[in-house]
Formats: sequence, C-alpha cells, structure tokens
Amino acid sequence: MVIFGANGDLTRRMLIPALYRLAFEGRLARGFSVVGISRTPMTDEQFRDKMREAVRKYLNDSPFDEALWAEFAQGLFYMDGDIFDAAMYDRLKVRIEELDRTRQTQGNVLFYLSTQPSQYGPVAKALGASGLSRAEREGAWRRIIVEKPFGHDLASAGELNGDLQGVFAESDIYRIDHYLGKETVQNVLAFRFGNGIFEPLWNRRYVDHVQITAAERIGVEGRGAYYQEAGALRDMIQNHLLQVLCLVAMEPPVSFDADEVRSKKVDVLRAVRPIPLEDAHDHAVRGQYGPGWIEGEKVSGYREEDDVAPQSNTETFAAVKLFLDNWRWQGVPFYLRTGKRLLATASEICIRFRRAPHRSFPRSAVGDWPPNCLIIRIQPDEGIVLGFQAKRPGPRMRLSPVDMHFLYSEAFEERPHEAYETLLLDVMLGDATLFKRTDQVEAAWEVVTPVLEAWDENPPSDFPNYRAGSWGPAAAERLIAQDGRSWTVPTAAPEETGGME
Amino acid sequence: MVIFGANGDLTRRMLIPALYRLAFEGRLARGFSVVGISRTPMTDEQFRDKMREAVRKYLNDSPFDEALWAEFAQGLFYMDGDIFDAAMYDRLKVRIEELDRTRQTQGNVLFYLSTQPSQYGPVAKALGASGLSRAEREGAWRRIIVEKPFGHDLASAGELNGDLQGVFAESDIYRIDHYLGKETVQNVLAFRFGNGIFEPLWNRRYVDHVQITAAERIGVEGRGAYYQEAGALRDMIQNHLLQVLCLVAMEPPVSFDADEVRSKKVDVLRAVRPIPLEDAHDHAVRGQYGPGWIEGEKVSGYREEDDVAPQSNTETFAAVKLFLDNWRWQGVPFYLRTGKRLLATASEICIRFRRAPHRSFPRSAVGDWPPNCLIIRIQPDEGIVLGFQAKRPGPRMRLSPVDMHFLYSEAFEERPHEAYETLLLDVMLGDATLFKRTDQVEAAWEVVTPVLEAWDENPPSDFPNYRAGSWGPAAAERLIAQDGRSWTVPTAAPEETGGME
Repeated sequence: MVIFGANGDLTRRMLIPALYRLAFEGRLARGFSVVGISRTPMTDEQFRDKMREAVRKYLNDSPFDEALWAEFAQGLFYMDGDIFDAAMYDRLKVRIEELDRTRQTQGNVLFYLSTQPSQYGPVAKALGASGLSRAEREGAWRRIIVEKPFGHDLASAGELNGDLQGVFAESDIYRIDHYLGKETVQNVLAFRFGNGIFEPLWNRRYVDHVQITAAERIGVEGRGAYYQEAGALRDMIQNHLLQVLCLVAMEPPVSFDADEVRSKKVDVLRAVRPIPLEDAHDHAVRGQYGPGWIEGEKVSGYREEDDVAPQSNTETFAAVKLFLDNWRWQGVPFYLRTGKRLLATASEICIRFRRAPHRSFPRSAVGDWPPNCLIIRIQPDEGIVLGFQAKRPGPRMRLSPVDMHFLYSEAFEERPHEAYETLLLDVMLGDATLFKRTDQVEAAWEVVTPVLEAWDENPPSDFPNYRAGSWGPAAAERLIAQDGRSWTVPTAAPEETGGME
Repeated sequence: MVIFGANGDLTRRMLIPALYRLAFEGRLARGFSVVGISRTPMTDEQFRDKMREAVRKYLNDSPFDEALWAEFAQGLFYMDGDIFDAAMYDRLKVRIEELDRTRQTQGNVLFYLSTQPSQYGPVAKALGASGLSRAEREGAWRRIIVEKPFGHDLASAGELNGDLQGVFAESDIYRIDHYLGKETVQNVLAFRFGNGIFEPLWNRRYVDHVQITAAERIGVEGRGAYYQEAGALRDMIQNHLLQVLCLVAMEPPVSFDADEVRSKKVDVLRAVRPIPLEDAHDHAVRGQYGPGWIEGEKVSGYREEDDVAPQSNTETFAAVKLFLDNWRWQGVPFYLRTGKRLLATASEICIRFRRAPHRSFPRSAVGDWPPNCLIIRIQPDEGIVLGFQAKRPGPRMRLSPVDMHFLYSEAFEERPHEAYETLLLDVMLGDATLFKRTDQVEAAWEVVTPVLEAWDENPPSDFPNYRAGSWGPAAAERLIAQDGRSWTVPTAAPEETGGME
C-alpha cells in the first residue's frame, strides 16, 4: 500500500491505526507493507516512530501489543519526494520491486491518495505515465483509493473521474466515503432486507417523511483552509448524507454484488426531483455559526477560526428537502441537515410514520398521540429505537409514547469495526460495494448543483445566523415547519440549555 | 358490595387487597361498604381482623397504612348465613338498608358471587325472589359479578346464563375473567390500535402463525377438588386463552365502547373453524404431570396431590391448534397451550412472521436466518420483544438475530394495577368492556366442545405423560412439529435442566 500524503492527519489518525487493528486480528496478508510518501524528509525509522505514537494515541479501547507492533512496523517504509517529480515515481517503482522481492508482497499494489484534492489528477496521471498503474504479474492487481472530496462541483468531478479512468479501470478505482463503512450505516441494509416485517411499511403508504441528521459539536478544528472552500453542503450532504438517503430509499437489491447495490443506489439519486434554481431557498437552507457556548465553554464564531477569512460566507450548516419521483416514495419528503458547532454530536435517520388511520380510543385516552417513529442511530450509542404507544399502567385506558430499543453495544460482544478497517480490507479483497462508482458521484453532484448555483448567485446577508451550541439557524426550523412538521431532537442528545446569544 | 363466599381464598387474597388499594388511591366512593357472607359464624370485628392480616400478607409491594386501614375497615361487615335460606336474604336486605342510612351508600349494590359454581344459579334466583336484585332508588343500580367457571360445558353455561338473565339485565351481569384485567393483556389493544405500523403486518400476508402460552410452575395447590372437575382445557383455554386469542385476532373496533369491543371479540370466536370430532386428536393434545423435579425440589405427580383421585384422568396440560375462517387469518394457525407443573411460569403471545421473501445476502451472511417474531409478554417481566436481524459487528456482512425490547417496569413509574383492582373499579363505573357477554361465553364453549366430547369418549391411556418440570407431553411437540414449526421457549424462562424421568 502506497500512501500519498503520508505525513497528513488521515494517515496518522485513521489509516495506520486501522491497518494495525487489521494486523491484530490477523486479517492482513503476509508481507503486507506500507510505503508512505510526502515532501517532509524522514527515515523509515522516523516514520515508524511517528506512527507508533499515533497508533498508541488513536487506538482508543483496542490493546496495544508491543510484539505485534514490532512485526507490523517492519512493514512500514517511507520515501520523501515531490509528487510532481516524475523521477519520484521511478524511485517508487524500484522500491516496490524491492519490497516484492524482500517481503513477497505478491505484486499487488494499492495506491491511497490522501493529498490535496487538486493533486489527485496529477498523481493518477503520473502513476499511469510511470507504468505503476499496471500490474506486472498475472493475477496481481493495482488499485487506487481516492479520498473525498471527489471534485468541487459536477464539472470538476467529471474531470477527476476522467483523469482516474484514463489510467485505472473503473473497477480498480475505490472512492472512499468513510460514512459507508460505519457499522450502523451498513446495518440499514441488514435491517431493511434481512427482515420481513419492515419492508412492507417502507413506502409512501406508511411513511410520512424521513429525516437524516448529522450534527457535530466540533467546529472546523484546524481544517479552516479546506472547509472554507467546501462548506457544509459539499462536505457532508453531497456525499455522506445523500449516500445514507440512498440506503434508506433504495429498492431491494437482487444480491449484494457491488454493482447491483450501487446501481440500486444510483436509481435513488436519479429519482431525486431537481430543486428548481429559482425556488432553491424553499428547499435548502444555509447557516454559519457565530460565537456561543458549548458545555459551559465559550467558543468562537466561524469567522474567528484559524485560516478562515473574517468575511467568509462559507456555510457551516445546510439543510435540504428532497422528493423522490418514483413509485415508492412519491410525495414523501426527505429532510437532510448537517452542521458544525451544534448542541450535540449526533447522527441518525428518523423514519416518521403516518398516523394510525382511525382513533378507536376515547379522546381522554390518547393525549396528543404522536405517530410512530423509527430511529436508526449512527452515533453515538449505535442502535435502533422504535417509538410506539403503550397503555399506561392504571385502571383506565390511557396511551403513552414509549420506546422499544436495541443497542449495538448490548447485543454484541464483538468490537464494532472502525469504518477505515472495514473499507481498507474491502479494497484489498476487491469488494467495491461500499465505495462510490463514477455515476454515483456525478448523480450526487447533480442533486446539489442547483443549490450551489443559487447560493453562489445570492451571497448570504445574515451570516453568522446561528449561535454555536444551538440546533442551527431559524430558517432550518421554517424549512420543515412550513410543511407542518418539526425536526426530531436526536435521541442521544442533551436538551438545549440556555446560553448567550 | 356484597360478597357471597366471603370466607374463601379469593376474598382474602384478591378482593379485599384490591379494594384496599383502590381506597389507598382514593378511587372508592365515600361510604363504600362491604358485607361478607358465608356459613362460618364471625363478628364484624373478627372479619375485619382476618381481612387485616390478609391485606398485610397479600399487598406485595404496596404500603400498608394503619390510619387508612382503620377507616377502610369501618366499612367492612359480616353476616353468617346459609345461601339456601330465604330468611338470610331478608336479613341482608335489612342490613343493606341500614348501611345506606348510616353510611350513605346511595343505594348502589354490587353482588359478588365467589361461592361454589353450583350455587351461582340459586343465589341469583334468591336475589330475585327477595327483591334484592332491584334498586329501590331512582338512578341507583344493582349489579352482579360472577367468577369463572361459567358453566361446565355449553349446556350448563346456557342454563347459568338463563338463571342470571332471569333476574338481572345482561348489562348488569359482569362475568369476570381476571386475565382480561392484566395490564399487558389490555395493552394488546393499545399496541395494535394505538399505533399505525403494526396493523398493516397483522394478517395472513405477513404472519406465519401465532402461539399463545400460559405456563405455570405450580401444581393444583389445594384446588384439587375443583380442578379434578375442570381440567386445563376448561380452566384456562376455554376462558383466558380464547380471550387472548380474541384480542390478538379481532378487527379494529370503531370505538372502545363495551359492546363494540365485545362484539368484535365474538366475531373471532365465531370464525373459529370447528374442530372435527373424529379428528380432534390432530388438533388438541392433553397431558397430565407425573412426579418430577422443579428448582431442585422433588414434586409429586398430579394423581398424588391432595383431593385428587389416584386414577384421575383430568388433564393438567392442554394444547390446541385453531384456524380462523375469515379474510384476515385464513390459513394462519393459532397454537394455544397451557399447563401446570411446567418448567417455568410464563404467559406470552408470540407472533411469528413469515420469512423475508427474498434473500439478497450471500449464503455466508445469514446462517439459519430465523423469521421475525414479536412477543407480548404477559408475565413475568411484562413487556414486548421484537426479534429481528441485525448486522454483526465486523468487516463482513453477517446477520445475527437480536432483540428490540420494551419493559413495562422500565417505561413507567406508575405501579401496574392488579387485575382485580381494574375490574372491580370497572364494575362500579359500569364499564363492561373487560367482562364477558353471554354470547362470548357460549361461543367459547362451542370452540372447545368437540375436544371435550372427543376426550370424554376416549379416556387417556398414557397418563401421567409428562414429567413435572418439563414443557409438557411429547404429543404437544408433535402437534406443532407436524406443521414444520416449533414452540417458542418463553423468553423469560430458564433453560430446561436435566431431571428424573
């Protein structure tokens, strides 16, 4: 595995800890090796020491085994070099051949692009020009993993896809969306298609609407420069949340074959009713956080963060309302929202069902009688909660809303895998189910393009428009309230407490 | 309230503690009084002392309040007398008039028949002859509560209903089935009709079959004489389990009006496909326990119990398979079973759904892939468990059965009411929803009549045929196994442990 951008955060926090865990479980092939590449000069030993510290720090609850590390670290190598320098690729080629000889890596090479997005195209081209993109041995493979963002808009995504496909076959390109590697996200398909009783309810006849929320308490945390160019719509909705939408709304697949699942997902994106450019503000809301209080601590507004322009109009909150023009979901709105510096970190899917068609109970029995609600909680406390009505204890028939719940951590002793472990292993095994195909990426860009264009044409005049530590701008409430509905407070989140405006 | 049979177990264990709890909650009318009647000579004070001990003993977790008891006991009175003696009813009349004067009971009288079943008819007739069955004041009422059994078969039930209806209006006759007063049993209707998402699944298209189990660990416990005449089919299935079947299978009621709900229940009983007399053994199984071990203690067989004939052929276990000939349930079997001296005390309804129609997952992902199952647990640990498939944590897609659960005791702080509290209060308020109408009782007898007749004609040759501490006779397993299905082990029950045959 060759990592471009090996001195970055992702390598340290995610990739090497994930690989170490896979090694711990004995899931890596014998001779598995990593070559890290970046501009900083470093020896193999220095790189290993740095990674050792990172693994110890980011391993969380998993045990750190010195003996295993010693063996694992033998497979870590480093090369400094400029990715725009063709000679670097020749050196890399020599290095790979040498590792193949000394460690019997069997000729399979996985390139991981963890560089600036603008360098994805040039690196791919250089891999092609140097011949590194072609396996030399029969039966061996060369695969490439690309980190998000996949383009900045539809046009640049098309260009990037062109660059990658000019060098690698589509089936060897793995566009990673770590959200899709999360256990609970994968469980959406297990839940829907591994059970006979949910699918009959999963349509316009019984579902009133769907909410998908990805709320973060953190701000831009040192990613100000990247984030300023991206914003919440590109950073979260165009990829993660639309992918979750696909899992919730897709038709049952014939099989779990990668292309079958991905085709069913693309069907969802293609069914999204285009947001009309002139009416975009009725379907999409943006926000930017000002200063506020989170857990009793004063936090700055977005414009005061490092590497952010003091007049930045980048949105740190976005909410959209989508409709799917297909048989199953006609008329059922899907509300997606995401934001930084919100009151809680919580990601969940909320399926709100329609009301029971008839109230047999006397008025005194039912109070406000909320409709049923199924929540698939992606984080924290991964699990499923089904809200329903039960009889209150007592001599009279009175209904009260209660929950039936399932918690991942209670049900299984196995450690949930981190998304990157699952995804890296999938690439090595050649399973692309959880990765995005060209048409998925482009269809997702098509969904958000009218909003991006409308927002570009009308810069916001009210930024910052929400307080750090709140649930986002008032306009987000209006987006859903105009339909007579309201956002669900994430089940694992604290109640909003008072704070300074 | 006049209790005939006031020196019996029911009065001591259930009725007076239930009335005390209602008093504790302030739910009894001012001046509420009890007149206990039985043959044993006793003064009011002796009766009160006896009841005081009983309440302290059977109150379980509820607090005993001396001051409240003192006030409550002021309303307890006793009269000894022979219920076949007409003069006794005259004395009772005088006593009631006197209490009305001294305690302002407002002229409402509730007669509770807790005597030998053979005395129900004579007492009713005597109440009529003495004029006690008619309220003297305008707006006041006279109601009668009858304990089960309501007859010994269809003919005797009809006779008893005739006797009661000759004296009281049907709307003033309350046939009590304490099972229907249980919170979890009442919750079946709340669950089905208070929610929009279960009813769409509640039919032959999604339900494979239904199991209703009422298992008791205890034996006949001093009720040998009664039980020998009754047996499990009459004692449990004809009333409790068929009533639960009605709740599970009934159509949604227009309202919770007593007659509407009871009519919908009768519809279910009328839809039961008659068990063919000549084929009854394919639809019904009986058993009788022999000696065995329960919780490490040796227990006797049924024929060795007190007041039981050593050659008794009374069944202590019964299981039946029923079909409903209606649109909703055509082809869906309902398996009902009950027994004494089983491995655990557990009552539950288990809805087994059909398998998911298509397996998209690879064979390696699903194992034996059990279908979904919804369990409504009546006791112990009242609650609801939904069994479904979820993704096992780990990098591959593998499904495992897990549970979503709801526990009454976790969801509500309120103390669940005892069945008798609910039911006594309902009678006082004139709400007959949870009581059985004539046609319900007779329709239920019609369901079990072919089985009673077939069993009478063919006395069992293999009794005792199950060991105390097991799950019943092997024939019960065959009853369901011949359809390719199996009994669910009650969720709150321990695993079967080895014991002596």
